[in-house]
Amino acid sequence: MQTPISRDHTAELDLKDPIARFREQFLLPAGVIYLDGNSLGPLPATAASRIEQVVRREWGSGLVRSWNDAGWIDLPERVAAKIAPLIGAAADEVMVADSTSVNIFKLLAAALKLRPERRVILSVEENFGTDLYVAEGLAHHLAGDVELRLVPNRDVESALTADVAVLMLTHVDFRSGEMHELKAVTAAAHAAGALVLWDLAHSAGAVEVELDAWEVDFAVGCGYKYLNGGPGAPAFAFVARRHHDVLESPLWGWMGHSAAFDFNPSYDPAPGVKRLRVGTPPVLSLAALECGVETIAAVGVENLREKSIALTELFIALVNQECGGFGFDLASPVEASKRGSQVSFRHEDGYAIVQALISEGVIGDFRAPDILRFGLCPAYIRFVDVWEAVSTLRRIMIDRGWDRPEFRVQARVT
Amino acid sequence: MQTPISRDHTAELDLKDPIARFREQFLLPAGVIYLDGNSLGPLPATAASRIEQVVRREWGSGLVRSWNDAGWIDLPERVAAKIAPLIGAAADEVMVADSTSVNIFKLLAAALKLRPERRVILSVEENFGTDLYVAEGLAHHLAGDVELRLVPNRDVESALTADVAVLMLTHVDFRSGEMHELKAVTAAAHAAGALVLWDLAHSAGAVEVELDAWEVDFAVGCGYKYLNGGPGAPAFAFVARRHHDVLESPLWGWMGHSAAFDFNPSYDPAPGVKRLRVGTPPVLSLAALECGVETIAAVGVENLREKSIALTELFIALVNQECGGFGFDLASPVEASKRGSQVSFRHEDGYAIVQALISEGVIGDFRAPDILRFGLCPAYIRFVDVWEAVSTLRRIMIDRGWDRPEFRVQARVT
Repeated sequence: MQTPISRDHTAELDLKDPIARFREQFLLPAGVIYLDGNSLGPLPATAASRIEQVVRREWGSGLVRSWNDAGWIDLPERVAAKIAPLIGAAADEVMVADSTSVNIFKLLAAALKLRPERRVILSVEENFGTDLYVAEGLAHHLAGDVELRLVPNRDVESALTADVAVLMLTHVDFRSGEMHELKAVTAAAHAAGALVLWDLAHSAGAVEVELDAWEVDFAVGCGYKYLNGGPGAPAFAFVARRHHDVLESPLWGWMGHSAAFDFNPSYDPAPGVKRLRVGTPPVLSLAALECGVETIAAVGVENLREKSIALTELFIALVNQECGGFGFDLASPVEASKRGSQVSFRHEDGYAIVQALISEGVIGDFRAPDILRFGLCPAYIRFVDVWEAVSTLRRIMIDRGWDRPEFRVQARVT
Repeated sequence: MQTPISRDHTAELDLKDPIARFREQFLLPAGVIYLDGNSLGPLPATAASRIEQVVRREWGSGLVRSWNDAGWIDLPERVAAKIAPLIGAAADEVMVADSTSVNIFKLLAAALKLRPERRVILSVEENFGTDLYVAEGLAHHLAGDVELRLVPNRDVESALTADVAVLMLTHVDFRSGEMHELKAVTAAAHAAGALVLWDLAHSAGAVEVELDAWEVDFAVGCGYKYLNGGPGAPAFAFVARRHHDVLESPLWGWMGHSAAFDFNPSYDPAPGVKRLRVGTPPVLSLAALECGVETIAAVGVENLREKSIALTELFIALVNQECGGFGFDLASPVEASKRGSQVSFRHEDGYAIVQALISEGVIGDFRAPDILRFGLCPAYIRFVDVWEAVSTLRRIMIDRGWDRPEFRVQARVT
């Protein structure tokens, strides 16, 4: 038998952690262990003063002049260029604009244009809600003959039939944290003549993604999760350079025009991904996102991934050690290489347990019907935080009598 | 002959101005007369501290809990309800989401769905760029047989033929400030069997609009102009209640789902305008917009309009008095009832003159080819500001020798 993992051991891991110092780059509230950065990343230390500067100096004093003088007009490109290395893309292949949902709409429509003889969008039943809704809406509205076809995750590759125009998947599953083999699945889609659109919502800033090297066609991602851009931060969109000349978004807005301020009555798309801009960019939200991206980029993707794996391995081991027999089933892959930066468990009292944890300062997340989801963001989560979180979980289970299966349902009702 | 208007007279007007006190609600930089609030409204006094609270307390300390605890999830509805009375709408007919451009896309597509037997979007050549681009993109992508038909402003009513599904106009022209007769044009469109989509970018918070009383079908508007929501603030969309049940936006996102957090694989639209929400709302930008809307709403639309007319009348009279014979041609309607809250002049040296004014602290705007545009936002512009602005204009024209027509071209070249 192995020696049990102790709190001291986790404290030692922190002492040896080469990226421990980056925790100071976030303003985390006292008394909280924050395991929900995969839903909303915390406040970067630079963001509060930066936003104040944008508000008081650039907006308040600079007024409309700041579009040029403070560089607001190029802010989407500037932030995109900082996201690019986190996802293995060139700066001019990424744009920051709108929400993830709206970007999925643009890129799905663009993909369908590139495969006019194929009319199926293929995705999986397990995909995140909005991805499916956007595709369903597009199929319904944009072209009557387009079909959104859903299969279970395990059947993706066999479903790559000759009528599939584009395969749309989320790299890391939002419930389980299971990670698709992005490179291999992309190759399989290409071999079947389909294009790919990857949603990197739970990937960017957390796991290694090499969009160019892995020959991805299209991708979108979220600004407010592992990129710490703040609530409702704008999203990003990636288009491989080989598709730039023929890229057609259905959303033609003035900020994506080749000459926005000439006010020509007819649209002429700006080069490459610049045409993915639509309306006026949300400067306050973009300024916050820039701080978040800079903070994560400074840590480095490889460092993040290495520590992320260590954290998730520790979390699983500690739940086994401290809460074994309490009814938790691992919902994430056992194998670290198949897991994103989160660990999920199933438990029939999941909702009540997550609420109890939150009341004790351990902020995780619940996803229906029975998933407890813990995001372990390596830029600011310590190994000792994992120990404390699991220790709190154990205490809650015992204190409330949830450690004995026969009491579970009763405990939930009262 | 009339007595010339003096600076003292304008100072007296300020003393008698019943809404003069609202100027204190904006943080305006010293030494600036800001006549470009129709491009970007200034910083409301409440916004800086409110945004800091959202950033440090709600995001920084509250973290993901603030979606519920701080009411972020309902922020779009909350801000929409505050915009509604400014445009003569009910709270549940308005939604705040995305950009003006993206909202035009949603509502144009929705309008076309309601008139399936008609395939023309009618608009005018003079419309703002992005409105036309969105419509052009929609016609190109959404349904091959849809046509965007453009006519000159003066021909709108005669162009309301039986194939027009929707008439899309901007209420106040961004160059000239000329205002369409919203009620009459809407009635004419309806008489011809068409729906209307009004862009209120230069109307909301500046002129009276009674969307419900005037039986408007659809409208969009901008958050960062007269609503003072900050750079790139989210936009709003209006849908008359009679269209709610059959409202179909092409953008189906999770925030517009009837049960966003159930993560059902299939889309079920939320009631009414809630289905116009798509992705996660940009909280920081929404918080700023809420401050801007509150500030304007406190003044009252009637008060704003009354002073706006007085300001624009004064501006025109003073340019005639102080700069007569300097080559300025009024590009706005002479009749106040046909004018928005701006005054525009044509001048062949317009660009250079606007630059010179800005260098002297009078911030106006230039729109190609020869328009000098001055927005007169009644919530914070004083009558004496108008006097100072025109006085500065006169001084610039004389100092640079631009007062004599024969020197104009030379002055522009050197």
